[in-house]
Amino acid sequence: MDETILLAHGSGSKLSHDLIEKSLLPPLDNPLLAKLDDSAVFDVSGRLAFTTDSYVVSPIFFLGGDIGRLAVCGTINDLAMSGATPLYLSLSLIIEEGLSLNELKKVIGSIKAAAEEAEVKIITGDTKVVNRGNADKLFINTSGIGIVPQGIDISGANAQVGDKIILSGTIGDHGIAVMSQREGLKFSVPIQSDCAPLNELVSQMLEASSQIHCLRDPTRGGLATTLNEFAKQSGVGIRIEEEKIPVHDGVRAACELLGFDPLYVANEGKLVAVVDSQDTDRILASMKRNPHGVDASIIGEVTEERRGRVIIKTRLGASRIVDMLSGELLPRIC
Amino acid sequence: MDETILLAHGSGSKLSHDLIEKSLLPPLDNPLLAKLDDSAVFDVSGRLAFTTDSYVVSPIFFLGGDIGRLAVCGTINDLAMSGATPLYLSLSLIIEEGLSLNELKKVIGSIKAAAEEAEVKIITGDTKVVNRGNADKLFINTSGIGIVPQGIDISGANAQVGDKIILSGTIGDHGIAVMSQREGLKFSVPIQSDCAPLNELVSQMLEASSQIHCLRDPTRGGLATTLNEFAKQSGVGIRIEEEKIPVHDGVRAACELLGFDPLYVANEGKLVAVVDSQDTDRILASMKRNPHGVDASIIGEVTEERRGRVIIKTRLGASRIVDMLSGELLPRIC
Repeated sequence: MDETILLAHGSGSKLSHDLIEKSLLPPLDNPLLAKLDDSAVFDVSGRLAFTTDSYVVSPIFFLGGDIGRLAVCGTINDLAMSGATPLYLSLSLIIEEGLSLNELKKVIGSIKAAAEEAEVKIITGDTKVVNRGNADKLFINTSGIGIVPQGIDISGANAQVGDKIILSGTIGDHGIAVMSQREGLKFSVPIQSDCAPLNELVSQMLEASSQIHCLRDPTRGGLATTLNEFAKQSGVGIRIEEEKIPVHDGVRAACELLGFDPLYVANEGKLVAVVDSQDTDRILASMKRNPHGVDASIIGEVTEERRGRVIIKTRLGASRIVDMLSGELLPRIC
Repeated sequence: MDETILLAHGSGSKLSHDLIEKSLLPPLDNPLLAKLDDSAVFDVSGRLAFTTDSYVVSPIFFLGGDIGRLAVCGTINDLAMSGATPLYLSLSLIIEEGLSLNELKKVIGSIKAAAEEAEVKIITGDTKVVNRGNADKLFINTSGIGIVPQGIDISGANAQVGDKIILSGTIGDHGIAVMSQREGLKFSVPIQSDCAPLNELVSQMLEASSQIHCLRDPTRGGLATTLNEFAKQSGVGIRIEEEKIPVHDGVRAACELLGFDPLYVANEGKLVAVVDSQDTDRILASMKRNPHGVDASIIGEVTEERRGRVIIKTRLGASRIVDMLSGELLPRIC
């Protein structure tokens, strides 16, 4: 019989302690977490990066991942995009009463696997349960702490005229994978989420060159939104070429069918880097040696013209403005 | 006309950026948050405390506080209970489509006020919106970072036989305040939540003595649960005296009416300290000088007998075991 989560699992009662000690702690076990104090305490020194994200993706399981893998990778990636080496994560669960314990255990298993892949530890946590109908199965918050090496200063505000823009791989995979799962769409070649931790890729890029000015993972709002943020934060123009942007055939077909522009579809295992033009080739070569960067390509450059704007040169040779998303494309994608 | 939150406010679109830049950033503004990069980066050195909590209280406004004040105070208190001086918080919102923008702004105003009271800054954040019916108005996660001073080692596992147990004030106020609000109960003297940041109180206690062995804020599950956790983590017995435990008359009356035991009702502005018996008076005196500790009293001691158990001497002179809560008392109290 499949047990389900009850309100009492979130009440601080014996049942809460049982859930934590039998189902949550064993897979994630480490000495800091095991202390079960109100805070985890550890020694650290240097420049710290701190980030948070809540994950509300629906459905919680999809091709290529689930909400657990997403919650680890998303926060790892936010740390990595500051050039930080991720150290520790917190894990906070908001569970809807009635979630099956087996589903919860499966998600915790994914969290364990993704944390091992990214070489981080989960050292503090929290579990809440809300009444049936007051949440949607499971929401997860992860916050993360990482160490930024000396000499690294990466920010969306650091793009300089003449810099090159590198994209680490194909766009739109995550958004279309979740959308297909949600709507029950079938494609001849199933589309998998690209959900992955990018900290190793970033660390290899930083070994190749310290001249990486901006880094961001184009999640909600897709590549178009990230580039617009860079243009705005740095006060520069950005020009990209459509034919340089890799898109899987299946994603392209799905986007045509559904009326989406892949530029705006979410990714969870890709990054955009704005780098010094002198070091572009070295950085690109380092990316191609990493499994998450094999399809990396230079997609454009930072310009003096049209400051605050992103311009795309289309396959037909025309130029048009790529604006920020103005409304909602796909709710609950991450 | 009262604007409401739309799905598009969480999509990474222009509307998301507007919400963040017009309604969320201005009240919380500081240079680290204003950078709007994926992580906040800052210098630090020493022993760090890291904690997380999600807040799902219903209703989101109650007498003496709201979900915003609770989300700041709760996480500040978890840091303080490790002896840490709180430095920074993250703030992650899960908003139900249809929440009024005015209510959201009111909550953000409370967050600002509580953060100022506790002297911490919110330096990184995230906003998600889920479809109507997939959450209940607003859930908030705050994670926190603090610095633990040299020589401080506070843990639920550190209680020693002979230690005294100090409670900082009356119990049950928060739980009964939320419950009254939820059920529309009226009392002749309205019961207010005790929701408050306790970091200043803890810092004054630590100035008075370094011999504070355990500290915890008795939230979900109340005083009974916290004492049981200490008894279990430290492998000691705990004996308390009912007549030493302060309870407001209104809370006592409400508990009798509703069939609750105040020992199990949640608090959000109280702490339990297990301290060396030599230093008890000095610590107690330091607490009484702080507005959040004026009603502090010694409620019991750590014993060799009945290891792992909490025993209460009742007003009638009898002794009984105070066990952990076995089921659910009040859902969604924090």
